Amino acid sequence: MDYSKFFSADVPSFLRSPVREIFRKVDLGAICSFAGGYPAAVTFPVEDIKRLSGEVLEKYGTKALQYGATQGVPELRQVIASRYGVPVSQVQITTSSQQGIDVCTRVLANPGDIILANNPVYLGALQSFRAYRAQVLPIQSVIAGPDRQSSVKFIYVIPDFNNPSGETMTLAEREEIVRVARELDCLIVEDSPYRELRYSGKPVKTIRELAPERTLHLGSFSKIFAPGFRLGWIIGPEELLEQIYICKQCLDLCPPVFDQYMAAEFMGSGALDRNLEKTIVEYRRRRDLMVSLLEKYMPEGVRWTYPEGGLFLWLTLPEGIDTVALYDEALAAGVAYVAGSFFYTDGSHRNTMRLNFSFIDESKMEPGIRLLTGVICNSLNSR
Amino acid sequence: MDYSKFFSADVPSFLRSPVREIFRKVDLGAICSFAGGYPAAVTFPVEDIKRLSGEVLEKYGTKALQYGATQGVPELRQVIASRYGVPVSQVQITTSSQQGIDVCTRVLANPGDIILANNPVYLGALQSFRAYRAQVLPIQSVIAGPDRQSSVKFIYVIPDFNNPSGETMTLAEREEIVRVARELDCLIVEDSPYRELRYSGKPVKTIRELAPERTLHLGSFSKIFAPGFRLGWIIGPEELLEQIYICKQCLDLCPPVFDQYMAAEFMGSGALDRNLEKTIVEYRRRRDLMVSLLEKYMPEGVRWTYPEGGLFLWLTLPEGIDTVALYDEALAAGVAYVAGSFFYTDGSHRNTMRLNFSFIDESKMEPGIRLLTGVICNSLNSR
Repeated sequence: MDYSKFFSADVPSFLRSPVREIFRKVDLGAICSFAGGYPAAVTFPVEDIKRLSGEVLEKYGTKALQYGATQGVPELRQVIASRYGVPVSQVQITTSSQQGIDVCTRVLANPGDIILANNPVYLGALQSFRAYRAQVLPIQSVIAGPDRQSSVKFIYVIPDFNNPSGETMTLAEREEIVRVARELDCLIVEDSPYRELRYSGKPVKTIRELAPERTLHLGSFSKIFAPGFRLGWIIGPEELLEQIYICKQCLDLCPPVFDQYMAAEFMGSGALDRNLEKTIVEYRRRRDLMVSLLEKYMPEGVRWTYPEGGLFLWLTLPEGIDTVALYDEALAAGVAYVAGSFFYTDGSHRNTMRLNFSFIDESKMEPGIRLLTGVICNSLNSR
Repeated sequence: MDYSKFFSADVPSFLRSPVREIFRKVDLGAICSFAGGYPAAVTFPVEDIKRLSGEVLEKYGTKALQYGATQGVPELRQVIASRYGVPVSQVQITTSSQQGIDVCTRVLANPGDIILANNPVYLGALQSFRAYRAQVLPIQSVIAGPDRQSSVKFIYVIPDFNNPSGETMTLAEREEIVRVARELDCLIVEDSPYRELRYSGKPVKTIRELAPERTLHLGSFSKIFAPGFRLGWIIGPEELLEQIYICKQCLDLCPPVFDQYMAAEFMGSGALDRNLEKTIVEYRRRRDLMVSLLEKYMPEGVRWTYPEGGLFLWLTLPEGIDTVALYDEALAAGVAYVAGSFFYTDGSHRNTMRLNFSFIDESKMEPGIRLLTGVICNSLNSR
């Protein structure tokens, strides 16, 4: 039976991400993988979770097992509102911050609408934007050039420790985003899953703080609690959240309720902050180790970002080296990364790659960087 | 700031469901409410869940807290595949069966496409169909009339204990659905959240069993485990699940992982079947109580369905009585229901209502039916 005739126009073949194909090729656990974007399992507060699961059932009883409000359970919305200094009415809980991206796009973007994004851009966002057949253009071209867009729906950015580049926007850059948004009269979706994971440098104001009236700020529990509980949040103007809430009703009625009470107790009791301190120490060590290994091994002409937080850094190889073409060779050698061009709206920058330093076993970090260096040097030598 | 200009064409005002407005008017816990569709909290296996949450963390460790596969964790897919006699490759886990409806619609329906549905139809499905701007037509008109539709994308039905009507399709009716689907060359979305909750009569073959090649069968843990874990599943042809899986990647990356292991252990260990037996005894008693109270109190000219399972029955009042108009009076008297016309694609059948018998405290059932009878009799007398 030919099923393709049944598919909607929203399901074109570009939804088949090349990254997913790459992840299918090999068991990444068996090699030195810098490819995924997973948090380290050692940061998961297993003992807290064991304790809290009993406490949640004692404290909330069957309420934790029943359907909940579409906006999220009041207890979790309150804890988030307090932490970030906003009214509860400006907090919507989402079933993962990926859902936050998806629901914002669905509520805002028509096919053909323009979304401005930093370039490189988070692949999960790019996939979601493309699934709604929105047109994604690099924000840089608009800021730099005279080419002001009139039908821009929103600007999408990860200002803190961008996935994939690891870079953080300065205050001036954030103010520029706000200026552009006001000039174009569009909204801003500020994706902020890593903000709490800062290892050095000083926090910069969020874009939401600079322009709360036109910003939808997306948060996530995946990197500060556990991604197995699929929970994120949106902070934004009530008029926007009202539509998002109505849309979310169609999506899944409500976020996971038991998970929400777990997160509320974890964040509200101070356990989150205690765990966050340990997580930051852990990840700072991993970042420093990776940077020192790159300094030690990488040949001249290879550059990388120095991330002040988050999970990733970004490698730029000499022009002419193609990290997509190099990937099979890297896998055969026993090391994995994600080719940088996948994160570009136009597939350019084929000499870049994203490296994750949070997930890999630390004992594999040095062998991995040595293997990667070998693959890169081979390619340089064969030119 | 006027935000309305930012909204996509998918966000029209009809997304504001009248039912939601009604639920906002009053604290339904304080009155006799037959309105919601919640399972009874007494059916939640609290002790099992306390035990399992520890066991899951012992058995699966940090795997239960990490990101999982988009298709669902293998352990849960396997348990469902075994229970329903299908290969694992034909099982996709969803974050609630509402997401199952949403993702099927998104993958299949373009704006303007026709979806055939039984009439009355589950409101959550109707909202989702409308959100994609699909056109929803009653299946009955197609079966009865010469008006064969050529651009039908799929037929949506709840064959077992339909929400809202409580009715169950006979085998002949299911075969007719399959015949129509084959004739129109369209798919079938068989929504089956209540199938395991049968209190009398004999199970009828599912539509999936009759036409596996063109059926997406949606299951749910909400009524047989706990809705607070947002979990459902889709059983269907691999070619369709492949597209659904790609789409789901954009929606929320993966279903809640901890919740999935809980469900896998609950279903796999036999605890689900033990709890289901108790749940069926509980709900059968409630159904019988409601039916006996309707027989005792309702005036002549009022008819109701006798559901063989599920959570609802359907009341038809004499022509001319408007249950939408009557609602404020009912609330003032202290009783709530959902007006039947909300479940009709054309808002007709204003003399009907849906009554839920699973959620209300049994001690409130008789007072509630007496209050409802009073409101109906008042209305009949004032004609």
